[in-house]
Amino acid sequence: MKPKHPTTGARLRVVLGPGIALGPGKADLLEAIAETGSISAAGRQLKMSYRRAWLLVEELNGSFQSTLVAAGKGGAHGGGARLTDLGARVLKHFRSMERKTHKAIAADLGALTSYTRSQK
Amino acid sequence: MKPKHPTTGARLRVVLGPGIALGPGKADLLEAIAETGSISAAGRQLKMSYRRAWLLVEELNGSFQSTLVAAGKGGAHGGGARLTDLGARVLKHFRSMERKTHKAIAADLGALTSYTRSQK
Repeated sequence: MKPKHPTTGARLRVVLGPGIALGPGKADLLEAIAETGSISAAGRQLKMSYRRAWLLVEELNGSFQSTLVAAGKGGAHGGGARLTDLGARVLKHFRSMERKTHKAIAADLGALTSYTRSQK
Repeated sequence: MKPKHPTTGARLRVVLGPGIALGPGKADLLEAIAETGSISAAGRQLKMSYRRAWLLVEELNGSFQSTLVAAGKGGAHGGGARLTDLGARVLKHFRSMERKTHKAIAADLGALTSYTRSQK
């Protein structure tokens, strides 16, 4: 997986309702689950503890009208995991918002960066 | 001052260089300093300790090519504070980026929100 968060740039976080937030961390986790087919492998890829990855998945699953991540029959650790259709849709919308944000703010970001000490 | 962060919506944070980040918290602080003419009054308005407000101002001042907040002659506590031209310009760019972000992601955000449990 390519690194998602360059040293400079924008980070977008959206709040969808009381206690329902989505940011780069959860989006990366969904993407890594789609890629690896496993919550534990996704957590390892993102250098996140299995416990943290699992808690984030539970939080995501509980926030939407149906689950975003489906765990396979072998149980949490054994049976693998995949994104549901809704999970894929949510991830796609978030990445779309990130792209649109980067495009919309590029000029302002360039100006701001030129004012920093590192650009002196 | 009107509340800047509604219960739902987007939060934008930009990283302009190594250790140079700008988000809603610092932007609100700059705005409150412009409005109140004082770092301590700005901190109170944002329910932030004076120490924290001062540290954020020092961080901002050290990150750009010149200071964003100028403290008056009376010293840190007594002489008041104001935004420099660069401070006003940085704040304006950040607010512009927030507005453009909100506009760019409105459709995706509406779709995502409609998938949440609170919308069932």
